[in-house]
Amino acid sequence: MKVIADICVVPLTGKTSVRAEVKRAHQILVDTGLTVHLHAYGTNIEGDYDVIFAALKKIHEELHRAGVPRISTNIRLGSRTDKDQGIADKLEAVLGKGSR
Amino acid sequence: MKVIADICVVPLTGKTSVRAEVKRAHQILVDTGLTVHLHAYGTNIEGDYDVIFAALKKIHEELHRAGVPRISTNIRLGSRTDKDQGIADKLEAVLGKGSR
Amino acid sequence: MKVIADICVVPLTGKTSVRAEVKRAHQILVDTGLTVHLHAYGTNIEGDYDVIFAALKKIHEELHRAGVPRISTNIRLGSRTDKDQGIADKLEAVLGKGSR
Amino acid sequence: MKVIADICVVPLTGKTSVRAEVKRAHQILVDTGLTVHLHAYGTNIEGDYDVIFAALKKIHEELHRAGVPRISTNIRLGSRTDKDQGIADKLEAVLGKGSR
Repeated sequence: MKVIADICVVPLTGKTSVRAEVKRAHQILVDTGLTVHLHAYGTNIEGDYDVIFAALKKIHEELHRAGVPRISTNIRLGSRTDKDQGIADKLEAVLGKGSR
Repeated sequence: MKVIADICVVPLTGKTSVRAEVKRAHQILVDTGLTVHLHAYGTNIEGDYDVIFAALKKIHEELHRAGVPRISTNIRLGSRTDKDQGIADKLEAVLGKGSR
Repeated sequence: MKVIADICVVPLTGKTSVRAEVKRAHQILVDTGLTVHLHAYGTNIEGDYDVIFAALKKIHEELHRAGVPRISTNIRLGSRTDKDQGIADKLEAVLGKGSR
Repeated sequence: MKVIADICVVPLTGKTSVRAEVKRAHQILVDTGLTVHLHAYGTNIEGDYDVIFAALKKIHEELHRAGVPRISTNIRLGSRTDKDQGIADKLEAVLGKGSR
């Protein structure tokens, strides 16, 4: 099943800087080979449901192994059968053609 | 990996009443056999990551098969290694012992 | 404008226990006098938009004043004009009459 | 209070195309004059809490006036006192300097 997801991982590390952990989480999404787009409050990712949620599991497991005791993640997940729409199409729908 | 998740499925059906679809989604979560708690803006579910996300995939697939062209779901996902905490513990932590 | 919201406050405190901060946040919502329902991953609240978002601002301000350096909150917000539906109605729609 | 928010408005219109409504919602955020960044699953916005949540109220009110019977919005909201960080800083923290 093809989906578009948006994933925001909040590691509770005992420090207020979570840069290293957020970079690692983003890299695991990039490593899926799927189309990803980082923004200031999460990462868009487009592709197969199973691939995306295997990557998300890996994020939680790796960060815990690296010493993060607690993680709170927010995910938006969209699927549709009426047309095939990717990240680029969604942006174009709002901003207009050639807008990026 | 044990997690607590909170799942809010919004079916875009072409009607404003989405009661039947939300009931079906909730039932699929109940059918996992995991501990679930319905509230006014989603369902808490506690248990194995793979079981929960297999159920969520089933929700999207079944609703699409039943004619829903578009679904937008929001998921909160928590995992922790510092202690074993379930739905009941989280409520007790805020409301105090025996509060339910 | 009447809305139903669901608010999940994640304080990044430098400790993994955030019980005190989450209790304080919940109490500020209770103090609005609006109908609230605590669950394992947030609090449902039903009432006037301005009252709810004034309370949410107060939560962020008070927790920062109490020493929390960083807060990440997730909010689900619903409004509708086709009928007047509260927290109790939403539960009944899924679980059936008299189900609570 | 300065915050970074990420806002995803899902109008339940009775059609599956919600392009016009999502464009209008995005335009209301742009009209605040604050820094905004559209992505495939929402809009980042950075600035004063009161300005952002007045705009969000306007989005719900305008869409309802335009005939949308039901709206479900998801908001991520971050505030911090340890440093002043905007949308550009958050991206740079993950992607590295000059990465955009």
